[in-house]
Amino acid sequence: MENKIKKIGVLTSGGDSPGMNAAIRAVVRTALYYDLEVVGIRRGYEGAVNGEFIEMDRKSVANIIQRGGTILKTARSKSFQTKEGRQKAYEQLKSKEIDALVVIGGDGTFTGATVFGEEFDLPIIGLPGTIDNDLFGTDFTIGYDTAINTAVDAVDKIRDTAESHDRVFIVEVMGRDSGLIALRSGIGVGAEAIMIPESKTGVEHLIHRLEVGRKDKSSKIIMVAEGDDAGGAFKLGDIIKEKFPHYDTRVSILGHIQRGGKPTCMDRVLASRLGVAAVEGLLEGRKAEMAGLIHGKIVFTPLDHAIKHNQEVNQSLLKIVEILSL
Amino acid sequence: MENKIKKIGVLTSGGDSPGMNAAIRAVVRTALYYDLEVVGIRRGYEGAVNGEFIEMDRKSVANIIQRGGTILKTARSKSFQTKEGRQKAYEQLKSKEIDALVVIGGDGTFTGATVFGEEFDLPIIGLPGTIDNDLFGTDFTIGYDTAINTAVDAVDKIRDTAESHDRVFIVEVMGRDSGLIALRSGIGVGAEAIMIPESKTGVEHLIHRLEVGRKDKSSKIIMVAEGDDAGGAFKLGDIIKEKFPHYDTRVSILGHIQRGGKPTCMDRVLASRLGVAAVEGLLEGRKAEMAGLIHGKIVFTPLDHAIKHNQEVNQSLLKIVEILSL
Amino acid sequence: MENKIKKIGVLTSGGDSPGMNAAIRAVVRTALYYDLEVVGIRRGYEGAVNGEFIEMDRKSVANIIQRGGTILKTARSKSFQTKEGRQKAYEQLKSKEIDALVVIGGDGTFTGATVFGEEFDLPIIGLPGTIDNDLFGTDFTIGYDTAINTAVDAVDKIRDTAESHDRVFIVEVMGRDSGLIALRSGIGVGAEAIMIPESKTGVEHLIHRLEVGRKDKSSKIIMVAEGDDAGGAFKLGDIIKEKFPHYDTRVSILGHIQRGGKPTCMDRVLASRLGVAAVEGLLEGRKAEMAGLIHGKIVFTPLDHAIKHNQEVNQSLLKIVEILSL
Amino acid sequence: MENKIKKIGVLTSGGDSPGMNAAIRAVVRTALYYDLEVVGIRRGYEGAVNGEFIEMDRKSVANIIQRGGTILKTARSKSFQTKEGRQKAYEQLKSKEIDALVVIGGDGTFTGATVFGEEFDLPIIGLPGTIDNDLFGTDFTIGYDTAINTAVDAVDKIRDTAESHDRVFIVEVMGRDSGLIALRSGIGVGAEAIMIPESKTGVEHLIHRLEVGRKDKSSKIIMVAEGDDAGGAFKLGDIIKEKFPHYDTRVSILGHIQRGGKPTCMDRVLASRLGVAAVEGLLEGRKAEMAGLIHGKIVFTPLDHAIKHNQEVNQSLLKIVEILSL
Repeated sequence: MENKIKKIGVLTSGGDSPGMNAAIRAVVRTALYYDLEVVGIRRGYEGAVNGEFIEMDRKSVANIIQRGGTILKTARSKSFQTKEGRQKAYEQLKSKEIDALVVIGGDGTFTGATVFGEEFDLPIIGLPGTIDNDLFGTDFTIGYDTAINTAVDAVDKIRDTAESHDRVFIVEVMGRDSGLIALRSGIGVGAEAIMIPESKTGVEHLIHRLEVGRKDKSSKIIMVAEGDDAGGAFKLGDIIKEKFPHYDTRVSILGHIQRGGKPTCMDRVLASRLGVAAVEGLLEGRKAEMAGLIHGKIVFTPLDHAIKHNQEVNQSLLKIVEILSL
Repeated sequence: MENKIKKIGVLTSGGDSPGMNAAIRAVVRTALYYDLEVVGIRRGYEGAVNGEFIEMDRKSVANIIQRGGTILKTARSKSFQTKEGRQKAYEQLKSKEIDALVVIGGDGTFTGATVFGEEFDLPIIGLPGTIDNDLFGTDFTIGYDTAINTAVDAVDKIRDTAESHDRVFIVEVMGRDSGLIALRSGIGVGAEAIMIPESKTGVEHLIHRLEVGRKDKSSKIIMVAEGDDAGGAFKLGDIIKEKFPHYDTRVSILGHIQRGGKPTCMDRVLASRLGVAAVEGLLEGRKAEMAGLIHGKIVFTPLDHAIKHNQEVNQSLLKIVEILSL
Repeated sequence: MENKIKKIGVLTSGGDSPGMNAAIRAVVRTALYYDLEVVGIRRGYEGAVNGEFIEMDRKSVANIIQRGGTILKTARSKSFQTKEGRQKAYEQLKSKEIDALVVIGGDGTFTGATVFGEEFDLPIIGLPGTIDNDLFGTDFTIGYDTAINTAVDAVDKIRDTAESHDRVFIVEVMGRDSGLIALRSGIGVGAEAIMIPESKTGVEHLIHRLEVGRKDKSSKIIMVAEGDDAGGAFKLGDIIKEKFPHYDTRVSILGHIQRGGKPTCMDRVLASRLGVAAVEGLLEGRKAEMAGLIHGKIVFTPLDHAIKHNQEVNQSLLKIVEILSL
Repeated sequence: MENKIKKIGVLTSGGDSPGMNAAIRAVVRTALYYDLEVVGIRRGYEGAVNGEFIEMDRKSVANIIQRGGTILKTARSKSFQTKEGRQKAYEQLKSKEIDALVVIGGDGTFTGATVFGEEFDLPIIGLPGTIDNDLFGTDFTIGYDTAINTAVDAVDKIRDTAESHDRVFIVEVMGRDSGLIALRSGIGVGAEAIMIPESKTGVEHLIHRLEVGRKDKSSKIIMVAEGDDAGGAFKLGDIIKEKFPHYDTRVSILGHIQRGGKPTCMDRVLASRLGVAAVEGLLEGRKAEMAGLIHGKIVFTPLDHAIKHNQEVNQSLLKIVEILSL
């Protein structure tokens, strides 16, 4: 079965994440190493539908391991959500003689891949490329480590100004459904409190902590995940301003800087390992699975499993915030 | 006259800027070099009013040249805006035998210093510590170089994601009255357009440029100064979304990260030179002047002159954006 | 048993590593959280011998989570290697009523702790603070993640100049007995070859790879661990220059920059978790053990076990270099 | 005269420096703005001799403003040093209908340009692209600001470890004939002493300063320019080790990292302004001149003048080291 694959297509889809280029590089070079041909598909599934293909060789991926973003670009595709669109995409792939796909992305990417792979019996391996770290089947997603370091670097700067002015800063980081960026970057900056959707710790608890906290500690950082049920940083800011009018309270939304930038070493290594695994997985006859890294070992998880089971929040990490921030 | 000064006070006031610590270090060590005593005043003029003094020696400023923020902290002082408050501050200084001040800050700081110095015949030298670069009498203010590099680093990251998604990003940087951060950082990131208060180039011109621009260039960065008369990034975003609905337009407000962070080499060198100059200026009998660097040379400018004459925007820089961004 | 501990001493010893300050902060604040007193011991075991103690409170460790180095300083101690020295250290601790220690360091630190703890029946918990990642009982040591990112950042810069000049660069990173820094940072920079002590892959293999490598790829990065049996970067450089005189070959020793710098988010989180665990471990009655993190969980390993069993090199990582670098 | 130029060639030559890509981008886009054609010449003069030409359009220089190195590559050319080589280069240019050149580099680049321009009456404008800042006719060369920031970042890391261990570090930075990198980066890191070729301050003075220096300040950074007459960092290290055996003295050679990396904002702006000026200068009929920036204004200096007059070392900067480092 395995030796039936001669040509692999690779695409990135959904929100970009740092390390996607390192993953593309690994997929391309591994394919070439195993004497397969490899084609880059631009702009995700939309490019598949429209036949935006580029031949890839070793040189196409030279000197990209350190670049943020994705050289293949990414896009949302409405047409791929229709049966007609997927049909068209399949025909484009066939006309190009592509017999297998590696798709790099998150939730939406894998949902599309599951349907597409089933409909046309096409072997597809997914790689977890998202800053949110919200997939099951891998300890870390490609881009998460970079995103938390970007957040930490930004908040270190904000801490400078918070300290100088004795200010309270409410900093919102990305994570609509997941507080994992807020959690680790919050510990990393020594945040006084962390507000995430996964934790019942609500506004009352925060207010209580601010009330009993050290009186001599006048600058404070409160990290909030975008999707926290307190309603984001601005709402939280209003509550705190009302409750603690003597504080000089400011809000900062870190925003899109969290998606970009040079990937960290860990993200590059992770992307490289998973890129190798994706191609080797296809050669072993795998399909509709995500390659992940669990406890230092490559693990394959069914795509529909990877997206349905969010990572649980490590409760011991929440405890650490309580202990260290007082 | 000169040898009458025996003890110098140093404070930081207004918004903090990277390099303030390097300036404090230079003031302290220069004072000690010339056998003066030196006292740190915490939290700006407010600390002067309240007598928040710290003795400074060489060790107090060890290992701070690279730190953002200000170890002396900064604050707004309402009481210092009253005659009574200033009287109290003067008495605090006298009781501590401080005969001269170095004040590090911007506009508001120098306004206060001018009044205070006149009222009590106290020699005061100002150092330009603000990220805005909006003072007359120095080519660059302490913190400006760091702020534009912080902005450039952030927008480089945003560019990664803009490129990956073919997006238009409207990025707002600091500068309520001055577009100098937007201007240089905008050139630095290769922005497609720069909107600043000093330029008549309005929204129409921007729309025109977007209309005639390269059709194959789908990602765009538009830099906006906080104080631009178009009303900031969100308003501009709405206009562009309406006019160009096919663009995927996003807004990003860089915010307070621009104030913090390790100062650049240039800011450290500038702060060091001006800190030396401030103390030497006091010893030469100067008062109510700002020490600045113009064309590589130390220049003293009356404080009230420094704040009344904003830096002109270099028109040739605006021209460069037109040429290079198309 | 647990409630016998009333006062903890904390010290850093051996080569400094980024994240040591985050670990100190966590130890101090966790001790205070559990109503213990905590004393900082300066300059490692030498400070214990000499009684260089500092009372620590919450404020002593404010704003240090992001700082490289160690605020407690570190040193080699000859006297602590003698029975008399250790006796003196024990008396100093007793006179200060310190009943337990947390020691942060590597091999040498733990060897000392094992002997000292046995001789005087003193509960000691070790934290793995070393950039080398060469301890058994933890997936990663505190400082390793920062060190590989520092190496990657440096080699990214070298790659710029290598690409511009079509040069071969032999870059030496730290690791006298361990190639783990070279291995991951080498993958991270996309090195063409990685030379480490743990791998039999010798100079012949390297020469072979350079001979069969892509002819159109003229710039190359070869990562060498300090302790590689080929004799380091300079020797390797001489061999390559002789064998491939047409290459423009350069050598770069990254050196001490690898020890310093702001810790990464992962190192800060790791240090925070292990610092909490160390104190909680002492309270549970543990002694002569190292707190580590394996597969995301806190694990305690006997100190003498931690130092005798080096981490094995992940062979799959070496394979990845072969696949991706061609 | 001006309108005779229809097609411009651009090349980079000599050691690469950060900002060269920003300069290439500016030259290309300015040429296109003025309806000229523009050709990239790869690998400096060697590529001119061999006819390694690439057509450049707006897209060729998209997204390079932030990249270190040079996309056109650089090389030494022996053949261009011969009359025959230059003849061949001229014929290559003529066959491609290139009527003018912009050459980006330093000393050697301008020497070649002077001879070549005279021999064949070819208009050539030089841009100062070198990290050394050793050209006359511009306040700063393209790459200098980045190089001093790279040095400062590296030494900040070394300072962490120096502080932790109470060590003396002798750090060697680039600058064979010029101490300008050592001077500004030395002030930037708060070095205890700076050794540069331009200063008579020799080893005796250094030893004297170390002898009289603060006894409580045990960590020290001594910055040495590569070309200092004390013979570089290793020699100096030996002298200090002999004279002060109680110091824990280490040597660090920063090496090639100083050439690479993302250019700073100032280097990007400088490169952009000078790139525009170069093309406009050619259109005004200039030849054999370097475009530089003096006191914020574009200035043209004859190429042979730019290389014969080194920048003087600002004596006031040396004085600052004396005052601040004690």
